Amino acid sequence: VIHYTIPLHLDKHTYPIYVGQHIFASTELLARHIRGKQVCIITQEKIAALYLQPLLRALQGYQCAVFSLPDGEQYKNLDEWRKILDLLLQQGHERSTTLIALGGGVVGDITGFAAACYQRGVNYIQIPTTLIAQVDAAIGGKTAVNHSHGKNMIGAFHQPQCVIADVNLLQTLPAREYIAGLAEVIKYGLIDDAMFFGWLEMNRDALLAKKTDALLHVMHVCVSMKARIVSEDERDLGRRNLLNFGHSFGHALEALGQYQRFLHGEAVAIGMAMAATLSGDLGLIPVATVQRIVNLLQSFGFVLNDSLPTSAELIQLMRRDKKMQLGKMNLILLSGLGRAEKVSTVSESQIEQMLQKFSSYK
Amino acid sequence: VIHYTIPLHLDKHTYPIYVGQHIFASTELLARHIRGKQVCIITQEKIAALYLQPLLRALQGYQCAVFSLPDGEQYKNLDEWRKILDLLLQQGHERSTTLIALGGGVVGDITGFAAACYQRGVNYIQIPTTLIAQVDAAIGGKTAVNHSHGKNMIGAFHQPQCVIADVNLLQTLPAREYIAGLAEVIKYGLIDDAMFFGWLEMNRDALLAKKTDALLHVMHVCVSMKARIVSEDERDLGRRNLLNFGHSFGHALEALGQYQRFLHGEAVAIGMAMAATLSGDLGLIPVATVQRIVNLLQSFGFVLNDSLPTSAELIQLMRRDKKMQLGKMNLILLSGLGRAEKVSTVSESQIEQMLQKFSSYK
Repeated sequence: VIHYTIPLHLDKHTYPIYVGQHIFASTELLARHIRGKQVCIITQEKIAALYLQPLLRALQGYQCAVFSLPDGEQYKNLDEWRKILDLLLQQGHERSTTLIALGGGVVGDITGFAAACYQRGVNYIQIPTTLIAQVDAAIGGKTAVNHSHGKNMIGAFHQPQCVIADVNLLQTLPAREYIAGLAEVIKYGLIDDAMFFGWLEMNRDALLAKKTDALLHVMHVCVSMKARIVSEDERDLGRRNLLNFGHSFGHALEALGQYQRFLHGEAVAIGMAMAATLSGDLGLIPVATVQRIVNLLQSFGFVLNDSLPTSAELIQLMRRDKKMQLGKMNLILLSGLGRAEKVSTVSESQIEQMLQKFSSYK
Repeated sequence: VIHYTIPLHLDKHTYPIYVGQHIFASTELLARHIRGKQVCIITQEKIAALYLQPLLRALQGYQCAVFSLPDGEQYKNLDEWRKILDLLLQQGHERSTTLIALGGGVVGDITGFAAACYQRGVNYIQIPTTLIAQVDAAIGGKTAVNHSHGKNMIGAFHQPQCVIADVNLLQTLPAREYIAGLAEVIKYGLIDDAMFFGWLEMNRDALLAKKTDALLHVMHVCVSMKARIVSEDERDLGRRNLLNFGHSFGHALEALGQYQRFLHGEAVAIGMAMAATLSGDLGLIPVATVQRIVNLLQSFGFVLNDSLPTSAELIQLMRRDKKMQLGKMNLILLSGLGRAEKVSTVSESQIEQMLQKFSSYK
C-alpha cells in the first residue's frame, strides 16, 4: 500500500517519493520509472539476503545485473564505484539503463554517483532500506564516495527518478542502525520544527518499538521537510546547508574513527549535541534548551561522551570539510528550538571550551 | 587582443568563449572567472614546457597547484583523474577552487570531469591549446575519461566558466596534430554549412600554413556553430547528436588502434569518409558529392584506407558506442552537403559493403 506520495519539485524535473508498506518490489511501481530494458541492482550482502529475491522477481523481463557491496561505510569508495562501472560496461548496459539502489546511505550514495557518471548520466531509483536513508540520504540527489581525506569529497548532484520508501523494510533493520537513523529524525525537529521535537519527546517508546503509525508520522514530517528544503536549494548554496546541522562535527568524528567506530547517525547525534552546546555557550539558546536536547538524545540511547577527541584533533579534521570557505569555519548552530542558522564567527578556543563542557554529560 | 567573444547560452548559465591572440595568460581575463584564491592548472608535459611559465606568472597571488599528465590519449583514464582529485585534497583545495585546463582535448576532458566531481562540482576554465580543442572539445561541457570498453564512457556534463581560445598557441602545435584538428573543422562544413565547405576547398593552403586570418575565420564559423548547437541541446538528446558525424566509426577505429595508432581527428576523418560513403550507398547524396568529400579529406593529408579493420571488427566495436539505443545502430549520415541527419536503419551488410568500396580510395 502506498500511504502517500510526496513530490520533490526541481527546476527541470519533479519526482515522487512513495511512502508505504510492502511497495518496494512492486512491478507496476518500478516499471513506471524504468525507461529501457536493462536494470542493475546495487545492494549489500546482508540486504541482498533479505530482499534481493523479491526485487528480482518483480524485475522479470528486464536484463538485470546485480552488484553486491561488502558491508560498511569504508566501501563507499572509488574502488567499489569503479567496479560498478566495469560491470555495467562488461554487460553492455546502454544509456537507457536504470540503476536501482537497494540499501542504506552507502548503497544509495555510490549508486547515485555511478549513475551520475556512467555514459555522462543514466537514470536511477532509490529503494532505501534504512531509516537514515529513508528520511534523508536517499532524497535530494546528493551522491558521493568518501576519500581518505574526507567524507563525500568526490561526488555529484544527480537526482533519482523516484524514491520508494517502504517502512516495512525497517522491521529487519538492526537496532543499532535504526537508532542511529533516529539522529537525523531528531535533527529535523531541532532545525525546523519545535512541535515535532515535542512529539519525539512524547513518542519515544512507540518509535523505539518501530510502531507503524509512529513511523508513518515520522516519515511524513521528515520527507516533506527534506523535499521542501531541497527544492528551494538543490545545489546546497544556501538554505540546504541547514540540513548539515551537527554534520561538521559529525564528519570529523567519523573520520577520526576511520569510518568504522561510529555509524553516521551516531556521529551526527554527538555532533548535534556539540553544536547545541556551542549554541548555548554563545548565548544563542538558553542552557535549559541545551539540556533538553541532550536529554532527548540520551533517552534515545545515544552515548555522547565516550572517549572524545581533543579539540586540536577535531579542529584539524573540520578544516577539511567541504563547508570551509576561504579558511573560515562555517557552522550550523541553533538560535532556538526548531530554528537553525549559519554562523561563521566561531573561534577555535570556543570549540575547545565546548569540548570541556561536553565531557560533563553523563 | 580579443578579436571576438562568442557567448554560449544555457538555461542556467551563459559563458563566454574568447577568441584572440596572446590572451591565454592575461591576468585580467583569468581573474574575471576565478572565484576564490585557489587554482589548479592541469596540463601535459610538452605543453607545460611551452606555456606553463607565462600562465603561472599571470596567476601570481593565487595558491596555485599544477598537475602534469603524460602525453597521449591513453592517459585520459580514471587513474590519472584520481591523481588530480588526490592532489586537490592533499593541497586543501576548497569548493571555491578553480581548475584550469591548459592543453588539448585530453587535458580539457579530464579536467572538466575532475571539476565535475570534486566536492560535487567546482569551477573550471578551458584554455585549449590544440585546434581540435579550440573548435570543438573545449566547448560545450562534455567531460569524460576513457575506459578499456570504450571512449568517454565515464563522464559528466559540466560547463566551464569560460573558454580562452588563443590562436597563437596553434603556431607551436605539431603538424600532425594540427591537421588532425582540421577533421573537426571540415565536419562543421559537412553537417551544417556547405558554403564553409567550399571555403575550405579554396583556402586549403592558407589553412595548412596556419595563416592568422584563415584561422580566425575558421574559429568564428566553428565556434559559433558549436555554441549554437550546444545551447539548443545541452544534454545531447537531439540536435547535438549531429556533431557526432563520423564519430561512431571514428571511435571504433580509435579503440581498435588502442587509442595509440590514430589521433582522434585522424580517426574522425576516416569515419567521416565512411559515413559519407555509406550516405552515397544509401542514395542520400550523389556519388559525386561523396567523391568531393573524399578528395577534400585527402587533399588535407588524411590517409583513409591504411590497413582497415574487417567489418566484423568494426561492427563489434560500434555496438559498444554510447549512441546505441535498444540494440539499434544509430548513425549520423549526410542527406546533402551541409546537411546531416540521424539514421537508424543501417544494416550490418551495408556497413560491410561500404568497407569494400572504401578500400578502393587511393
